[in-house]
Order: sequence, then structure tokens, then C-alpha cells
Amino acid sequence: MEKELSQEQAPENESGTGRLEAFSDGVFAIAITLLVLDLKVPDLNGASPAALGAALLKQWPNYLTLFISFATILIMWVYHHRLFQTVRRTETLLLFSNGFLLLLVTVVPFPTALVGAYLRTPAASLVCAVYSGFFVFINLSYNLLLWVVSRQQPEYRSLGSSLSKSWIISLLGLPCYAIGVVVAFWNPYVTLGICCVLWIAWAVTAPQQRVRQRPAELNE
Amino acid sequence: MEKELSQEQAPENESGTGRLEAFSDGVFAIAITLLVLDLKVPDLNGASPAALGAALLKQWPNYLTLFISFATILIMWVYHHRLFQTVRRTETLLLFSNGFLLLLVTVVPFPTALVGAYLRTPAASLVCAVYSGFFVFINLSYNLLLWVVSRQQPEYRSLGSSLSKSWIISLLGLPCYAIGVVVAFWNPYVTLGICCVLWIAWAVTAPQQRVRQRPAELNE
Amino acid sequence: MEKELSQEQAPENESGTGRLEAFSDGVFAIAITLLVLDLKVPDLNGASPAALGAALLKQWPNYLTLFISFATILIMWVYHHRLFQTVRRTETLLLFSNGFLLLLVTVVPFPTALVGAYLRTPAASLVCAVYSGFFVFINLSYNLLLWVVSRQQPEYRSLGSSLSKSWIISLLGLPCYAIGVVVAFWNPYVTLGICCVLWIAWAVTAPQQRVRQRPAELNE
Amino acid sequence: MEKELSQEQAPENESGTGRLEAFSDGVFAIAITLLVLDLKVPDLNGASPAALGAALLKQWPNYLTLFISFATILIMWVYHHRLFQTVRRTETLLLFSNGFLLLLVTVVPFPTALVGAYLRTPAASLVCAVYSGFFVFINLSYNLLLWVVSRQQPEYRSLGSSLSKSWIISLLGLPCYAIGVVVAFWNPYVTLGICCVLWIAWAVTAPQQRVRQRPAELNE
Repeated sequence: MEKELSQEQAPENESGTGRLEAFSDGVFAIAITLLVLDLKVPDLNGASPAALGAALLKQWPNYLTLFISFATILIMWVYHHRLFQTVRRTETLLLFSNGFLLLLVTVVPFPTALVGAYLRTPAASLVCAVYSGFFVFINLSYNLLLWVVSRQQPEYRSLGSSLSKSWIISLLGLPCYAIGVVVAFWNPYVTLGICCVLWIAWAVTAPQQRVRQRPAELNE
Repeated sequence: MEKELSQEQAPENESGTGRLEAFSDGVFAIAITLLVLDLKVPDLNGASPAALGAALLKQWPNYLTLFISFATILIMWVYHHRLFQTVRRTETLLLFSNGFLLLLVTVVPFPTALVGAYLRTPAASLVCAVYSGFFVFINLSYNLLLWVVSRQQPEYRSLGSSLSKSWIISLLGLPCYAIGVVVAFWNPYVTLGICCVLWIAWAVTAPQQRVRQRPAELNE
Repeated sequence: MEKELSQEQAPENESGTGRLEAFSDGVFAIAITLLVLDLKVPDLNGASPAALGAALLKQWPNYLTLFISFATILIMWVYHHRLFQTVRRTETLLLFSNGFLLLLVTVVPFPTALVGAYLRTPAASLVCAVYSGFFVFINLSYNLLLWVVSRQQPEYRSLGSSLSKSWIISLLGLPCYAIGVVVAFWNPYVTLGICCVLWIAWAVTAPQQRVRQRPAELNE
Repeated sequence: MEKELSQEQAPENESGTGRLEAFSDGVFAIAITLLVLDLKVPDLNGASPAALGAALLKQWPNYLTLFISFATILIMWVYHHRLFQTVRRTETLLLFSNGFLLLLVTVVPFPTALVGAYLRTPAASLVCAVYSGFFVFINLSYNLLLWVVSRQQPEYRSLGSSLSKSWIISLLGLPCYAIGVVVAFWNPYVTLGICCVLWIAWAVTAPQQRVRQRPAELNE
């Protein structure tokens, strides 16, 4: 009968969270890769090497923001992926909150391109505030998703210590990004620094995971 | 012998619907993410923050249509995905109707960009009619697919009540989008409102699904 | 001991053809979706509905070629996918021939855009010849892949009837596309017609496949 | 009890390396496909076939670099994929080094487009040096990843002969690409030749893998 159950679970799992996870993973992977479309080849007529080199170096805000956005989406994917391992029902609210998060993730290349284009102009404060403000919304939608998934857990009512740790790490981003919005009008580079510190902090606190017990087969 | 069967099914499944589903999912995920390419960074020389802010706000039709198209594709994916769980044969007609649906899904970013670009011009009625008309075709191709898959079910002849419910939800879109086309020439915003109401209605009626019985492991 | 073998096969399979298939599927799905980027929103200042409508209709070659290329890539994917189910070794030659096919598949949006842009100009013959000529190369690389995979089959030497059927269907495209190249200089529309007839022929001859024996669960 | 273990491993595996592999595969597949966006349809008014043909032929540097970059990313994917089969823990350092490699892979279309645009200008040496220099960084990040994964192997301390073979093949790229950077200022075409020789060498040395023992089913 256990066998029966296991056979029942396989299709259920595939049809439920498994596909939602795979779809979300796909959206994350595509959004992270579309960031490169913001790097434009300079359009110079009769280019001397010096002129081209200068034009390429002048694009450094684009390189910087691509790096920050890439790292942030990647870390978000790691946490999103871990969170989905605990999902028990693909209820309507989960579909909505996950869909809203995915929507924001796909839009990340846009504020990224904005900062790349305007960081060296008088509008730098505005675009950095938009950038950090955009991540406030991403953090809000992630917290919404975390709340929906947490509600499905049996230990939710008792607020187990390990569950709260997830919340602390996740909620940390909200005030930080909000500070980033305000600080941008004083110094936009500090805002970008805050965004960098956040993904580094999340990457370092991402828990280790033991995966395979199989013997090494690197060079088979 | 049951063991034998199960081993036979595994490769069959992988080679049949499984891969077709994964391929369809991939196309959905990419189409939904390509919507962001319609958001253009304003090209202003000597940008003042005020000018940039105004240019960004002026793009609100693009934000609005991205949101509607994203939500609609996502809901279509949810239903498409559930429908494919009942597919029994990857017959030629199924390949054709699914392929036609995928073709239309990949093209969604185009009418979306049209509405974004022309909603604030005299051509607003035309582009909103095109937009709603495009979803008439998507709905037709989805209904074709639903019909092909329904034909494969044993209870098809007896028209079981649960099967008809799928049909009602699906066919609902056809007259609504058609009304959207007509209404666009009176007020294009009402057309966009109809498109919004439709995906919300589909999202709310999307059935819950119980997935995993494993104990919580959120913070392992 | 059979159990042992089955456990051995699982990781082998995952690490071998399975991932190569998934990667190829991904490339197919992305290439097919990137076709939409060729549909440009007309850039009209002070657009009247009539002017916009005319501009949209004038783009019909783009719609036509998107449709042909989409259908052709989709059918290629179906056959590629079926072929890979018989792969036994991911040998170097297989990697090369599959990689070459994938390279050509990713490039399909380029000749497609060419035909879309120049079908209504004096250069129509040239672009249609390039388009059909491009599919000559795709067909050649698919035949190379088919040959590599056939060589791995035990019945290869005896040339079983079913194996030869695959070859006939596949080799059919080679002279047809080549004729398309020549015919383009007489009438480019005939070339596009040949390309259409080919994918329809392949779609119709794509074999049916029985997938699931599970009871219907459409409306669970 | 072995059964128990195997059931424990399945979800572990799925939640650990499996998804990280799938995500990495997705990024590789998208980056390799985005290369085509660098092929632009020539924008000629009143195009004669001769003018269009000349414009298409003039783009040969873009075709060449697309080919080299495609082949190099594909080979990198093959090796990356094989390497991940030996991963045992998704530790923080692994996440960082893999993420850094993925970042560089997604950016490959940019230096590729640079070479395509400037190979026939005085800036050819600069862009080819940038191109080869970019692959120095990719090789460094791959070696970092290889080191992280090697550390997890039990035979790491004893430096088994098969493990060192992986290292030799991988480290070979570092001096070759570095030479490519220097040589570019003498002859940029030699640099592109070095890049070609490298991926051919890696493709030829990519080990064969036996996958399926199932009987042929090509024409079922």
C-alpha cells in the first residue's frame, strides 16, 4: 500500500508544485540572462581603438548594475527555490503571490537599464531611488509568498524558532531597500552599496546542503 | 508484471507528453519574460530628474499592458498545464492545436507593445481592438486544444458534469474578448478592463491542489 | 540484480542523453520564441488609426515568415526529440552534429527576419533563396545527426524497413529545399509555398504515440 | 533500509544539485540563443539584390564570432554539466563560484557583438584582446568551480590521476587565452584562431559516455 501511495504521489507532485517550480525557475533564468541585452555595442564611425576603449569604459555603470542585478536575482532564486520545497498546496493565493513575484523579477532588467543609462547624469538620484524602490516591492511580494507558504506549515501557530529565522532574513531587506530609496537623494552610490551588501549577506547566510552520497565519478 | 509495466511507462511518459509539456512550459516562460523588452529606457540628452520622471510616467500604458499580458499568459499556463495532465495520446491533431496555441502565445508581446505605444493616441481604439481580437484567437486555439484532449477521455460521450465545467470556464472568454473588440471603438479602457476581469476570474476559479504530505522542512 | 542495474541506469541516463535532450529542447524553445522580436511596433508620429492599420498590414511578410519558421522549428523539434529517444552513446560525433544543428536552429530568426524585411522589394528572390538555402543546411545537419544515431543501432547493418522510413522522410527535405533555392529566382512565393508544404507533410507523417493509461482526471 | 535511503535521496537530490544544474543549463541555453540577436537585418532603402547581398556578406565577422562563441559556450556546458555530476554539497562557495561563471556566460554575447562590429576596423586588435581576455576570466571562474568541486571528493588529497586529467584540460585554456590577448595586438585573426583551436581540442577530448541499454525503438 505504501508502494501505491508512492505511485500516487509521483504524478501529483509532477503536476503540482514541481511544474510550478520549473516554470518559476525558467522565468528566473530568462530574466537573469536578458540583463545582457542592456550592454550595447558602441556605435562609432571610423573607430580608433582609443575612442572605442573610452566608449567601452564609459559604460561602466551598465557593467556595475548588471552585476548587482544578476547577483540579487540569483540569490532570490536560491531562496525562492528553497521556499518552494516546503509548499504543500498550490492554492489560489500562492498562485497570485508567486505570479506577482515572477512579474517583478521579469521586470528587473528595466530599472537595471535605467540606472546604467542615467547614473552619470543629474538624474542619478532618481534612477537609484527607483531601483531600490523596485526591490522594496520585490521584497514585499517575496514576504507575501513566504507568509502564504508558512501558513501551510503545521508548526506555523507555534512559531518554531527555525521558521522565524527565515522571516528575519527575509524581512531584513525591506527596511534596507527603503533606506536605499531615501539615501539615493543624498548619494546614489550608497544606495547601490546597500543593494550589494544585501545580496552578499543573503549569499553568506544561505544554508549548506548535503546532496549526494555516491562515490566520486568525476573522471569516469 | 506490474513492475514491467511501470518500467515501460516511465520512458513512454518521458518521451510523450512529458517532453511536450516541458517544451510548452519553456515557450510560456520565455514569452512571459520577453514582455519586459517592451519597456524602453527613455533616451534623453542632458536629462534633468524632472524630465526623466515625466518620461517614465508617460510610459504608464506600457506598464499597464505588461501587467495584463503577464497575468493572462500566467493564467493560461496554469490551465494549459492542468489540461495536459489528462492528455493520453500525442496525436497529430494535438500537436497541431498545441503548436498553434504556442505560436499565438509567443506573439503576445507584439499586440502588448502595440497597445503600450498607441494607447494615448487617436489609434487607441484600433490597438485595443487588435489586442482583444488577438485573445479571441488564443481562446479559440485553447478551445480547440481542449476539444482534442476531451475527445481522448472515456467520459467524453456521456458529458460528465466536471468536464463541462472546464468547457464553461474556457468558452466564457470567447464572447468576452469578442465584446472587448467591439467596445474598443467606444472606449478602449473598457476593453482593457474586460481583459483584466477575465484573468482575475480565471485565477479565482483555478482549483486548489494538494501536493505534498511530507513534514515541513523549511529551515532544515 | 536487475534492481541494481535499474539504479545504475537512472543516474547514467540523467547525466547522459537526458540532459543533452533537455538542453536541446531549451534551445529549440528559445529560438522559436525569439522569432517574435522580428515583429516591430510601427513608429509613427501623430498616428491616425488608418495610418497605423496600413502600417500593420504592410508588415504581412513578417507575419507570414514568422508562421512558417515557427511551424518548421516546431516540427523539427518533434523529430529531433523522437530521434534522441534512440541515442545510446553521447559520443563526440553526436555532440558535434547535434551542436551544429542547434547552432543553425538558433540562427533561424535571422533569415526569417530577412525575408520579412525584403519580400516586398526587388531583393525578394535573394532573401527567399537564402531562406530556403538555410534550411538545406539545417536538413543536412539533421541528416548527419540521424546518420550518427542510426550507426548506434544494432539493426543498422541490416537496414530494417522502419529505420529506412525515417531516412526517406528526412532526406525528402534536402531536394525540396534545394529546389526552393533555385525556384526563388523565378518566383519567391513558390519557395515559401514549398517550405509550407514540407512542414505540413512532416506534421502529418509524425507518428501517433500512446502515452498514459491513467483514468481521466481533467476536473479533479 | 536501502529502499528508505533511496527514497530519502530522491527529494534531496531534486532540491539540491538537480535544480541548480537545471537552472545553470537554462542560463547556458538562453545565453547561447541570444547570440543570434547580434545578427541585424541590413537597413537599406530601395534595396537592389546586389546591395543587399553585399551588405549581408559584409557582416561575415558577425557570423564568424557567433560560430566561435556558440561552439565555446556549448563545450563549456558539456564540461560544466559533467563536473556537476560529482557535486556533493551545494555549499556557499559553490553557489558563488557557479554564479560568477553563469554571470560571465550570460555576458558572452556582448564581447561577441563587439568583435563582430569592429573586426574590420582599426580597433580590431582591441576588441579581439577584449574577447580573449573575457575568456581568461571565464576560464578562471571555471577553474575556481572545479577547485571547489574537487575539494569535495574523497580522493582529492591523494590527487588521483583521473582528477588531475580534468585539471590539465581545464587549465590549458588559461595560458592559451592569455596568449590570445597579447597576440591580438599583432594579428587579431590569430587570436580568433586560438579560440577556435581551444574549443575543438575540448570537444575532441570530451569523453564518450554509454547511456542506454534499451533495444532500438527508432521507428516504433
